[in-house]
Amino acid sequence: MESGLKPMDAEQLRENAHKMVDFIADYYKNIESLPVLSQVEPGYLRNLIPDSAPNNPELLQDVLDDIQAKIIPGVTNWQSPNYFAYYPSNSSIAGFLGEMLSGGLNIVGFSWVTSPAATELEMIVLDWLAKLLKLPEEFLSGGQGGGVIQGTASEAVLVVLLAARDKVLNRVGKTALEKLVVYTSDQTHSALQKACQIGGIHPENCRVLKTDASTDYALSPELLSETISHDIAVGLIPFFLCATVGTTSSSTVDPLRKLGKIAKTNGMWFHVDAAYAGSACVCPEYRHYIDGVEEADSFNMNAHKWFLTNFDCSALWVKDRNALIRSLSTNPEFLKNKASEANLVVDYKDWQIPLGRRFRSLKLWMVLRLYGSENLQCYIRNHIKLAAHFEGLVKQDQRFEVVTPRIFSLVCFRLLHPNKDEDNANQLNRKLLHDVNSTGKIFISHTVLSSEYILRFAVGAPLTEERHVNAAWKVLQDEASALLKNL
Amino acid sequence: MESGLKPMDAEQLRENAHKMVDFIADYYKNIESLPVLSQVEPGYLRNLIPDSAPNNPELLQDVLDDIQAKIIPGVTNWQSPNYFAYYPSNSSIAGFLGEMLSGGLNIVGFSWVTSPAATELEMIVLDWLAKLLKLPEEFLSGGQGGGVIQGTASEAVLVVLLAARDKVLNRVGKTALEKLVVYTSDQTHSALQKACQIGGIHPENCRVLKTDASTDYALSPELLSETISHDIAVGLIPFFLCATVGTTSSSTVDPLRKLGKIAKTNGMWFHVDAAYAGSACVCPEYRHYIDGVEEADSFNMNAHKWFLTNFDCSALWVKDRNALIRSLSTNPEFLKNKASEANLVVDYKDWQIPLGRRFRSLKLWMVLRLYGSENLQCYIRNHIKLAAHFEGLVKQDQRFEVVTPRIFSLVCFRLLHPNKDEDNANQLNRKLLHDVNSTGKIFISHTVLSSEYILRFAVGAPLTEERHVNAAWKVLQDEASALLKNL
Repeated sequence: MESGLKPMDAEQLRENAHKMVDFIADYYKNIESLPVLSQVEPGYLRNLIPDSAPNNPELLQDVLDDIQAKIIPGVTNWQSPNYFAYYPSNSSIAGFLGEMLSGGLNIVGFSWVTSPAATELEMIVLDWLAKLLKLPEEFLSGGQGGGVIQGTASEAVLVVLLAARDKVLNRVGKTALEKLVVYTSDQTHSALQKACQIGGIHPENCRVLKTDASTDYALSPELLSETISHDIAVGLIPFFLCATVGTTSSSTVDPLRKLGKIAKTNGMWFHVDAAYAGSACVCPEYRHYIDGVEEADSFNMNAHKWFLTNFDCSALWVKDRNALIRSLSTNPEFLKNKASEANLVVDYKDWQIPLGRRFRSLKLWMVLRLYGSENLQCYIRNHIKLAAHFEGLVKQDQRFEVVTPRIFSLVCFRLLHPNKDEDNANQLNRKLLHDVNSTGKIFISHTVLSSEYILRFAVGAPLTEERHVNAAWKVLQDEASALLKNL
Repeated sequence: MESGLKPMDAEQLRENAHKMVDFIADYYKNIESLPVLSQVEPGYLRNLIPDSAPNNPELLQDVLDDIQAKIIPGVTNWQSPNYFAYYPSNSSIAGFLGEMLSGGLNIVGFSWVTSPAATELEMIVLDWLAKLLKLPEEFLSGGQGGGVIQGTASEAVLVVLLAARDKVLNRVGKTALEKLVVYTSDQTHSALQKACQIGGIHPENCRVLKTDASTDYALSPELLSETISHDIAVGLIPFFLCATVGTTSSSTVDPLRKLGKIAKTNGMWFHVDAAYAGSACVCPEYRHYIDGVEEADSFNMNAHKWFLTNFDCSALWVKDRNALIRSLSTNPEFLKNKASEANLVVDYKDWQIPLGRRFRSLKLWMVLRLYGSENLQCYIRNHIKLAAHFEGLVKQDQRFEVVTPRIFSLVCFRLLHPNKDEDNANQLNRKLLHDVNSTGKIFISHTVLSSEYILRFAVGAPLTEERHVNAAWKVLQDEASALLKNL
């Protein structure tokens, strides 16, 4: 790469990209030997890397050596079969190939004309996925609705919140912003709170409705109704309800149909966040968890979580695409073109926050084609089976308890304190989490429900097999034994 | 991929990814033979693709054949050497390799702990780039400021607008939202208008200050001062100013130092959008275009435009990272961890709209290392030289005029109407744009300045050489001749 810089020479690309493929394949070959949670200390990298860019080109092999020696130790290996934290972030061969092709073509599909295939494939593939999920017809692209790929569920809930906000403000006047009220449960993802902050919703008008064990932490329609009535009585304007299918803490499912009817009665926008559990609903036996989605104005699932599509790929469907477009469109001269002005095409720039966008539908299309829907169903079922297996293991050990009913592939459990002391039990589980993750053998995460510190075991990495679940349980048992012995 | 689904088998990944590399390398080998602007009709893809996902797996070769036959014709080839539209969106071997590795590892680096290397490399590499740009020390990560990779310049301006909004509202009270005023020029990117819509800024409080040829379409400090004084006099609160280095229409440079001092005097947040032209400022001879950046609170350049880093990679620096964090942080239980709670680390989730984020610093790091800063400077200089060459060609042809002074790699020009009739001249250039792009031989775009329809020729694709610029000019001359003959 001396004097004559050839940054996009086809044969140099071929040669170097083959090397990178081998590097990545070798990473997967050895992934089980790496600690799942990175064990480095804060600031570790600063001393390993020069403090300014080189003047002259370096060799790819030197960079690859540095990645192996300096970067990989600082990576928390989300694709490890021993990764059971948060929710999964699936990689797959098909998803990776689609991502690679998208990076290779490197087009920016903000308007139809800037790459018609990017817009049209996205419309078609989101129709495919909507059909697999048996979403109502109104969410398909043939009518007034349609699907769009957002980066994350955070962006999905933000854009629909903005659409809902502007819809009601157009009716009642801009100055009513401070009267608008949002309804959510204390199990709703923090992304909604952030969306409210961004959209200027008055912080006191975010109703975070309390849940408890009596409903398995699902949002109570009765409590919602009462709260709405009270708000209306004092002159506030309820406008947005977010329900969740598969909450972040415990995979709870909110009662969509009842909640949706309340939203509809009150003229509110009803959003369903199925970021994690939406994937399970491609299986007929789990589809009933989104019964009631016909009441929703928008529905979101993250294909990048548990559907083998590399990050990022968050699928959002709306029934009224014009509501999104009214909030998010701009029409500067330099982007005007015949197809857009004739209203013949979709311009996805008006469905999202950023202007630019990658060709993300390629990877979802490749996942659906290279695996096929039956395999994808098997994939989901297998993880749920493995989680049920883990749940069984926990139940057999009297020292532990399963805390909430397991629905999908997440098990919420905890180590009981011998003295039944709650404060000490929390401390004990906090310690267990730390000890287990410090082994590097597995990575799990935690939550708090009704003041109880709880461990989360989420099955969902593509490489996870029953032997990994058994080994993980062994790590948990061993660390628990050591802890209990020292009490 | 039958019964036993192995979606992440290392050897299958190796085999299939090598095939995809060859597909992409072949695409670049043949890229000059493809029409630059896709010539398909709206809706073309719907008839070429089944209307639902397959039940059973398909072969990669069948998918690749479909991509060749059905997708590529619908792609507008941003990497073609004959692409001169909008601004460039660079791909390079280094950028592509970094993107591939990021997709391969597929980690989600929202908090430090979820992959320490992702956060730390981003901090270090943005310091590298800040040093190349000679940004003030306050923008580096050592003090109160720091850099972060956003997806796009739209997200960058949105997050700083929100930080500025909340900073002033915290001082004067939440109910003052409707009094907040934003200042911009009519050449500022439409992303700012969108950010105002999102952030709930009153539409009547977005001051879009008029520019004209007398300042080469740069924002006038005098007009800004007057407008601010008037707004303060009527009880409004000026809080945000956006200046641009390299405007979207004509690559104008706003006078940063004067504007910045006005902003500072009035206690406003000063944002500098150098999305396109920022890249040029790594060359000492162009660095003076961002003189005055020391007055700025935030500075943005898109490494994914003209700096060989594949989309998306928009570098944003702020002097006060806590202002961003105060607006954008959430702290749900399930993400709590020791390193974050001890305040030992940066959690980039609190610097951006989404929660999840890719490992995007890898590609910027690889670009800087595999090319080195001197090559990158040569790369920029070469494009500017090619644009100057094109400008010379236009000036030699009396039928055309160069409309605004060329500063970087964009030439704004137009075909003159023989009768000097303005309406007809606009129509003529609109027609010329259409005819030229319909040849598929080159792709250029347009803008409007002072009611004149103007053609934009932006050099910046990695494969573009002098012969492509000459051939493009030949296409423009030929189509112009044909048009003029038929007048």
